[in-house]
Amino acid sequence: MTSTAATAATPAGTLVPALTGVVPPVCTPLTPDFEVDVTSLLRLVDFQLAGGVDGLFVLGSSSEVAFLPDAHRAVVVDRVLRHVAGQVPVLVGAIDMTTLRVLDHARRAARAGCSGIVVTAPFYTRTHPAEIELHLRRVAEQCEAPLYAYDLPVSVHSNLDHDMLLRLAAEGLLAGLKDSTGDDAGLRDLIVARDDAGLTGFSVLTGSELTVDNALRMGADGVVPGLGNVDPHGYAALHAHARAGDWEQAGREQERLLRLMRIVRAAPASRMGRGSSALGAFKTALRLRGVIEHAVTAPPQIPLDDTETDYVRRILIAAGLL
Amino acid sequence: MTSTAATAATPAGTLVPALTGVVPPVCTPLTPDFEVDVTSLLRLVDFQLAGGVDGLFVLGSSSEVAFLPDAHRAVVVDRVLRHVAGQVPVLVGAIDMTTLRVLDHARRAARAGCSGIVVTAPFYTRTHPAEIELHLRRVAEQCEAPLYAYDLPVSVHSNLDHDMLLRLAAEGLLAGLKDSTGDDAGLRDLIVARDDAGLTGFSVLTGSELTVDNALRMGADGVVPGLGNVDPHGYAALHAHARAGDWEQAGREQERLLRLMRIVRAAPASRMGRGSSALGAFKTALRLRGVIEHAVTAPPQIPLDDTETDYVRRILIAAGLL
Amino acid sequence: MTSTAATAATPAGTLVPALTGVVPPVCTPLTPDFEVDVTSLLRLVDFQLAGGVDGLFVLGSSSEVAFLPDAHRAVVVDRVLRHVAGQVPVLVGAIDMTTLRVLDHARRAARAGCSGIVVTAPFYTRTHPAEIELHLRRVAEQCEAPLYAYDLPVSVHSNLDHDMLLRLAAEGLLAGLKDSTGDDAGLRDLIVARDDAGLTGFSVLTGSELTVDNALRMGADGVVPGLGNVDPHGYAALHAHARAGDWEQAGREQERLLRLMRIVRAAPASRMGRGSSALGAFKTALRLRGVIEHAVTAPPQIPLDDTETDYVRRILIAAGLL
Amino acid sequence: MTSTAATAATPAGTLVPALTGVVPPVCTPLTPDFEVDVTSLLRLVDFQLAGGVDGLFVLGSSSEVAFLPDAHRAVVVDRVLRHVAGQVPVLVGAIDMTTLRVLDHARRAARAGCSGIVVTAPFYTRTHPAEIELHLRRVAEQCEAPLYAYDLPVSVHSNLDHDMLLRLAAEGLLAGLKDSTGDDAGLRDLIVARDDAGLTGFSVLTGSELTVDNALRMGADGVVPGLGNVDPHGYAALHAHARAGDWEQAGREQERLLRLMRIVRAAPASRMGRGSSALGAFKTALRLRGVIEHAVTAPPQIPLDDTETDYVRRILIAAGLL
Repeated sequence: MTSTAATAATPAGTLVPALTGVVPPVCTPLTPDFEVDVTSLLRLVDFQLAGGVDGLFVLGSSSEVAFLPDAHRAVVVDRVLRHVAGQVPVLVGAIDMTTLRVLDHARRAARAGCSGIVVTAPFYTRTHPAEIELHLRRVAEQCEAPLYAYDLPVSVHSNLDHDMLLRLAAEGLLAGLKDSTGDDAGLRDLIVARDDAGLTGFSVLTGSELTVDNALRMGADGVVPGLGNVDPHGYAALHAHARAGDWEQAGREQERLLRLMRIVRAAPASRMGRGSSALGAFKTALRLRGVIEHAVTAPPQIPLDDTETDYVRRILIAAGLL
Repeated sequence: MTSTAATAATPAGTLVPALTGVVPPVCTPLTPDFEVDVTSLLRLVDFQLAGGVDGLFVLGSSSEVAFLPDAHRAVVVDRVLRHVAGQVPVLVGAIDMTTLRVLDHARRAARAGCSGIVVTAPFYTRTHPAEIELHLRRVAEQCEAPLYAYDLPVSVHSNLDHDMLLRLAAEGLLAGLKDSTGDDAGLRDLIVARDDAGLTGFSVLTGSELTVDNALRMGADGVVPGLGNVDPHGYAALHAHARAGDWEQAGREQERLLRLMRIVRAAPASRMGRGSSALGAFKTALRLRGVIEHAVTAPPQIPLDDTETDYVRRILIAAGLL
Repeated sequence: MTSTAATAATPAGTLVPALTGVVPPVCTPLTPDFEVDVTSLLRLVDFQLAGGVDGLFVLGSSSEVAFLPDAHRAVVVDRVLRHVAGQVPVLVGAIDMTTLRVLDHARRAARAGCSGIVVTAPFYTRTHPAEIELHLRRVAEQCEAPLYAYDLPVSVHSNLDHDMLLRLAAEGLLAGLKDSTGDDAGLRDLIVARDDAGLTGFSVLTGSELTVDNALRMGADGVVPGLGNVDPHGYAALHAHARAGDWEQAGREQERLLRLMRIVRAAPASRMGRGSSALGAFKTALRLRGVIEHAVTAPPQIPLDDTETDYVRRILIAAGLL
Repeated sequence: MTSTAATAATPAGTLVPALTGVVPPVCTPLTPDFEVDVTSLLRLVDFQLAGGVDGLFVLGSSSEVAFLPDAHRAVVVDRVLRHVAGQVPVLVGAIDMTTLRVLDHARRAARAGCSGIVVTAPFYTRTHPAEIELHLRRVAEQCEAPLYAYDLPVSVHSNLDHDMLLRLAAEGLLAGLKDSTGDDAGLRDLIVARDDAGLTGFSVLTGSELTVDNALRMGADGVVPGLGNVDPHGYAALHAHARAGDWEQAGREQERLLRLMRIVRAAPASRMGRGSSALGAFKTALRLRGVIEHAVTAPPQIPLDDTETDYVRRILIAAGLL
């Protein structure tokens, strides 16, 4: 595994290697009464590390960050950071509505020793692009950890402007971007603009787990795949093929993972939200693979039933993971 | 004025008077370094009570709840509840993304002795209608204070289903609704359905501050007007005219308040978000009227500049409020 | 019935009475092979006139204008205009994507002698507010008939700016507005601004058929109720009560019509679009009332089945219309 | 150039080569008084053919189909089909709101001898997925030309369901898809599902002109690039590199075209719609390159001014196209 450092924006401004490779957003296993299942969580972290990932991202959307009370968040950050102990960089999501609330989360994560914090545009409020820039700028200035912007319009209902991102990166305020827009043309435009500007300390990570080979071909530095929870070895292999320039093998691995991804359709859209179905399927797969104890998701998400669990099981078998 | 109690869902199931009248969502004055300005906050509360309001709603959208860290929220709840001391019912917003996080806020507010908590549909996540119902049901069951649902699609990007609301109300789980959809036809449909079902303990409050006379004519129990911060006397007068059946006077008062509402357009949409302009205008007006010390709004909102402040001043003068 | 003229923007600029009262958007009865059923259409027109309406609007959304080929549209315009022969004003929808296409429809309608044409913002394209203004301006300048703007965000996915509308009205380019935004606060703001500006030749008609009493109280000139197809007498009575200042009776009539409106929920949202259910219910009700021959709607709309038809029948019986 | 036939759905059901390669959506040059500039149009067609394209698509979004009256559309179809005379397949957009209107356009195009018609989901109306399927099914059954579905959510505000598309393809009702969703993960999922099902007569064409190399790597059959109007040679070269498996060269050509694409940002978003800026830039570039006479776009689009035209010129020079 290529261990990488996420310290792009150091005080001295020296350019250091930016975050690269496979950085899964780690699921948060829960007990049946909705407490953090720390044993399962650390087993999942070990499973990821054994799978060859290059970093970890806790308290992201796939971690059910939006569902976790602050006390749960603190447990996750403290236990994972202590457990990983610097083997790989660990990013922490500071997901909340606006600046002062985000800063509360970000400072706690920085104090705990994370490698970077991940922040979206404000949500719930209706925010002007100039205010989104102020938001990121203020968080970057008032938090010690490197800042990664998180472009997630499906959750926050606005987009991050690329010119703004590159402006903040040029000022040393942004260490990178997690792009979960699903817009690969936009991703390419950003990467070309970054490279044309000679910006070397700005990591571009894609959250589009079904076009990772394309993203890496286009110059992305890494991937944050929710599905990586279930099959970290697959994403590590895909990344290795890409680094070796073997796009044929990379494409085949990506197609295998695409077929595996169909577990997220376990439940019909008439019965639960797409999020519940996807997070429920990830956790069900991890339980079936023996990595975590319970497939419990936080309320108000609806759990997968037996039929839906069987659907996940069949796909895991077809993918050679059971 | 008839002080009213917000205890619709008592353990014994007895029907008690539901919340009615003018219940302004109280702005949260801030100091220049973004702490709660408690002196100004309590002066604003007194201003509202002197204006004749029937209840108060703290930690709503107009209170910048989305911008306030938990510590700020606690200060607001504790100080306002202690200060009001039962003179009028005080509702508290428990605004957060999902169930467990909302419950944290809700229990704190209940312990502090609020008259009800106000809860939206989940946001940031993509939530199915069945999950929205589970959310409200779980909060109602696990929190002691009466629950008011808050329909606010502009912030949470989903709507509350009316059949679901009336189902929960019939089970004694919902004490009322704050409707901020801006859809007066939907509001009327809900009120007619409620009355046809003989549901007497379910308060319907409109958040549409420019059609309050219409809402009251249609059977709404009260109004939660953001603009009430600036002119509580106006809304109290409007409500009194409506109770007296004097729709002519009620309409005239409403039109006066509509012209006053134009302060929210102080700033151009090219310069800041609509939210910043509105909240900035409310606070600027309160400062100009001598009620609060600073017009500071929380980051990342952009403050009104001098030209925009003058715009607010001119409208206040025209409305006879300066 | 107060016959009214829709000739607000005369060459000489003289102010004439603008369009007022009840102006139903006339359904377009079809034969089983999807031709215009002219006999039923003219019977429906007579039914409306006998019901006491003040004008007619053909080729609106409730007329299935989006589903009718140009040949069908021509038949509707020619036959209705000839049949009405000036008894009441007849507006014609010129509904198409952009300016040149709209002008084709508008000129045909003007040549046929309509009292006004009704035009939305461009759709399918992504259009800037400045381009929406250009669109309305160009249509107004190049078409002889008075122009009514049609604000219908649910169909065209943009809103008409009120300042722009009043600017065009002040220049004599706009005779009125059909507001189908469902935003009664916005409607009131427009009416107050119009009246404050002293604009007398600009008719504001609401398309919100469940808050007509409110709209008339706020100063709207009339209503374009889709449900008026089924019960024109009800809307005429509601309008008469409002003109007499009897808001108590107006409210009661509006609530009766609100209960009747529930026919539009005949079909579940899982089975067909809301539009199909509503238009199918209007036509089914008209067939059950003996006004039109077939309840056929144009493809690809799904027709109501027997259960859904029974649902409509029961509501009609409850409303005293069968 | 591999001339290809677009006759996937023959009466006998025999599998024939589906449409492949570069199929630009041909701009519609206009005169200053908004008539079709036929001389320029045919010169543009010749420019495309000389550039090495594999097919042409007239009356698509880039052709300003939404802005062209029926008479203009007829001129375009008749003149282009006669001019091309079978050298390459010519697809024709039958873009209109609903089934009967689409059928009018589709039949005219089929009579004129096109190789296929291209049809979106209904728009303006609110259409249920079952109704979208009925729409495509009915058009396919009642029009002689092969049918291509056009997935364009930015214009029609709904998406085409992939299971439905493959179901229609399996029945021989659909010859292909133009995917303009910008969602490359979804595109890949569709292609994998198509190939897993062994569906060989269903062409998948991407409209995402900045990730064409990726789409071809993933198994797409071709591309419909609006920017191909300006640089058909570039897209033909990109396609040739891809067919040869030279992804390195394909990527470099795609990046060159990405930089060229920035002409669409010639005008600021505050001055005109994104569509006007893009179509205006394409036409301005074609005028500067001497292919068409005027850069005129149809109303209500705002034309590029001198500064914006200079911006386009500079990018063309940088790209080696002037």
